[in-house]
Amino acid sequence: MDRIRPHTLSGFMELLPESQLKFEKIADTLKRVYSLYGFTPLDTPVIEGSDVLLAKGGGETEKQVYRFQKGDNDLALRFDLTVPLAKYVALHLNELTFPFKRFQIGKVYRGERAQRGRFREFYQADIDVIGDGKLSIYNEAEIPSVIYRAFTELGLDRFVIRVNNRKILTGFYAMLGLSEKSGDIMRTADKLEKIGADKVRAILIDDLSVSSGDADAILAFMAIKGTNAEVLSALEAYRGKNEVFDLGLTELSAVTRYLAAFGVPETNFAIDLTIARGLDYYTGTVYETMMLDHPEIGSICSGGRYDNLAGYYTDRQLPGVGISIGLTRLFFILEDRGLLNPELKSAPADALVIPMTDDLEAAAGIATAFRGAGIRTEIYFEDKKFKQKIAYASKLNIPFAVFLGEDEIKEGLVALKDLETGEQEKLTVSEAAAKVRSALEKLGTGKPIRE
Amino acid sequence: MDRIRPHTLSGFMELLPESQLKFEKIADTLKRVYSLYGFTPLDTPVIEGSDVLLAKGGGETEKQVYRFQKGDNDLALRFDLTVPLAKYVALHLNELTFPFKRFQIGKVYRGERAQRGRFREFYQADIDVIGDGKLSIYNEAEIPSVIYRAFTELGLDRFVIRVNNRKILTGFYAMLGLSEKSGDIMRTADKLEKIGADKVRAILIDDLSVSSGDADAILAFMAIKGTNAEVLSALEAYRGKNEVFDLGLTELSAVTRYLAAFGVPETNFAIDLTIARGLDYYTGTVYETMMLDHPEIGSICSGGRYDNLAGYYTDRQLPGVGISIGLTRLFFILEDRGLLNPELKSAPADALVIPMTDDLEAAAGIATAFRGAGIRTEIYFEDKKFKQKIAYASKLNIPFAVFLGEDEIKEGLVALKDLETGEQEKLTVSEAAAKVRSALEKLGTGKPIRE
Repeated sequence: MDRIRPHTLSGFMELLPESQLKFEKIADTLKRVYSLYGFTPLDTPVIEGSDVLLAKGGGETEKQVYRFQKGDNDLALRFDLTVPLAKYVALHLNELTFPFKRFQIGKVYRGERAQRGRFREFYQADIDVIGDGKLSIYNEAEIPSVIYRAFTELGLDRFVIRVNNRKILTGFYAMLGLSEKSGDIMRTADKLEKIGADKVRAILIDDLSVSSGDADAILAFMAIKGTNAEVLSALEAYRGKNEVFDLGLTELSAVTRYLAAFGVPETNFAIDLTIARGLDYYTGTVYETMMLDHPEIGSICSGGRYDNLAGYYTDRQLPGVGISIGLTRLFFILEDRGLLNPELKSAPADALVIPMTDDLEAAAGIATAFRGAGIRTEIYFEDKKFKQKIAYASKLNIPFAVFLGEDEIKEGLVALKDLETGEQEKLTVSEAAAKVRSALEKLGTGKPIRE
Repeated sequence: MDRIRPHTLSGFMELLPESQLKFEKIADTLKRVYSLYGFTPLDTPVIEGSDVLLAKGGGETEKQVYRFQKGDNDLALRFDLTVPLAKYVALHLNELTFPFKRFQIGKVYRGERAQRGRFREFYQADIDVIGDGKLSIYNEAEIPSVIYRAFTELGLDRFVIRVNNRKILTGFYAMLGLSEKSGDIMRTADKLEKIGADKVRAILIDDLSVSSGDADAILAFMAIKGTNAEVLSALEAYRGKNEVFDLGLTELSAVTRYLAAFGVPETNFAIDLTIARGLDYYTGTVYETMMLDHPEIGSICSGGRYDNLAGYYTDRQLPGVGISIGLTRLFFILEDRGLLNPELKSAPADALVIPMTDDLEAAAGIATAFRGAGIRTEIYFEDKKFKQKIAYASKLNIPFAVFLGEDEIKEGLVALKDLETGEQEKLTVSEAAAKVRSALEKLGTGKPIRE
């Protein structure tokens, strides 16, 4: 028979079992944290009509979209989880209760140029709060708490949530009479950390024709740093010159006011006036999250406030705030840099029952009892030498083996072996189950990330 | 602005939040049960190269496949989880440990004619055990135990796992000298329950040119019914006439031998000689699962033993056994027939904190404390009348509200209201958290299905 070479497409992550279990643990942690804040799970189709998905049209994204015909239908694969959310909310307006808080962890598709660490199919893990007409600023204030809890529960400690407000930037540039150039200026200022103040100044003056005085004013503004209180106080000096700025400053103050009550330490939070976020639709608070020891990775969790989620589908005003974690890329980076906790449970089972007799009655009974006690239990059925059976357990890091020979069966006991310590005991089935369960409470309870 | 009509493609399930939570509960239950048997989670791409996905080629399936070009690549969306598994195992042969036991719950795509209850995007929930060269028959014996536990943990009781062995059928038709027609005969016999013995007899004789005597022999064979012991004993009468038959009977005996030890009651299990399963690649044990009160639905969990998983990709012999649950269709049917447990938790949060003051310090603090105690907690931030805030909680079925007025804040207490009983108490934060937690242990712990 002619054989086809099995292969997985480039840009598509496919994990081996051990890594997959770690990935699942990360995804489960995010689900749990998102749920703790009252976000409800949502699942939308991977395929949508191209008219729906590309309602906005144009831009880099459209070129990357997987789009195709099936019968008479012009179809496309979703390239993010925000457009499907917009469609969902517009479609189900009268069936939803607002504010509508949903999380979605799902695959999205972008036909980017394939390169190491870039994916064409990748998971996003998003939360959004959508208001009907209005949405309180305090939803924006709670977001850093979700980010903080998500990453600390994943095991990350050395990260900072950077926050800014687009209205502050918009208002500031209006003060200087630079509103028309503000988009270009923001994109330039966004590079401050990467290329330094001198180069930013040069681009502002040479490429964007900003006056030397204004360039200095911009750099002075961007240089405002310090504790939240210090930054807010420095910003107060600009108050009263522009209404949009003033509103932005009031919002930023509100967002930082309850950080402590929301459990976010100041060390994990910073107001950062250089942050603008590329997307046009953010209108208020914007968020980025940086790993302190890996700034080269860029933001691992970003988002912000927008005034109108679904303008392409409905005339109902739907303001919202949301964040997104690029889960596949994050996982790739964590694994690549050795930041995944090696002690994290990676075995497919907690116990391997190894029958030593032809009759499997006792083995089946014990496995059934263990499973009833919540122990993930596999029976080794294959006809192999004893050594190979044990090798199977140890290859898969299964922590316990249960041996069942003639003697044990006669006595109604099992031989339970802790494969790490090598310790072996004869116990009743319920004693053995209790012992495994108590060991499991300690095993594999670590967090997915270890810095 | 010209607006696009928001819509979801026909044949694509998209659930409202309450239903989605129930769907998640079903999927989580299956994950847990599959894990209890030592199956490890796997996730493969939704898109594969068409060469890989359509290696087998031909047939109805190929017409239904979503296939398209992207750049130079000929791509296709997976139409089941078995072909991707075959590719995965062939690709990672040397990195996997055998027997390899994996489960996968994922979306697959088939461009079927759209009709009520038929889906073009649907979840399959599969398990498979793959051997390297050989695979013990006892893996087949354990499968009914997985099916039984899966459905009973979902809350289903009135179902029967029907089991047969293809070798018994193959051997039986060889005894009659009808091997060449055996495929057609099996497909006809498969309809026995639907169309009755007379019609089957007519088709056998008129359409398939089976002699009247052979037709009677076939119908007599298919009529073998009773307890496992009775059926096996009736089959023993045929032993010694055909080697394949004898092997099949030995296998079927092995599969039924440890049912009780595996915790499967005989009432939920039946040997059924009419079952053949359509797919060509099953070579031994085959499984179907019927809901006793809804036979019109057909099988809700099917599968079987195959001798060669990945012959299109590798010359390594990889026998396996697996089953698949069509989760989207099952969920649709359960919801449609009112079989979902209405008491199942459907609220996005366990507690809604309702601040009654402008300052949100206390509300944020309490929400943070509740979340730390594992209580899914939402703060109602919007500026609405008290009545509307309560209406929000009750619309979403949130069981507890926490009121925080000036008095409570001064006293360092909260007013906790059980929204079902209407009972309200002033408690400390930790007392309130303890009360909610203890109530939650009783709430929403029901099984997803209620017959």
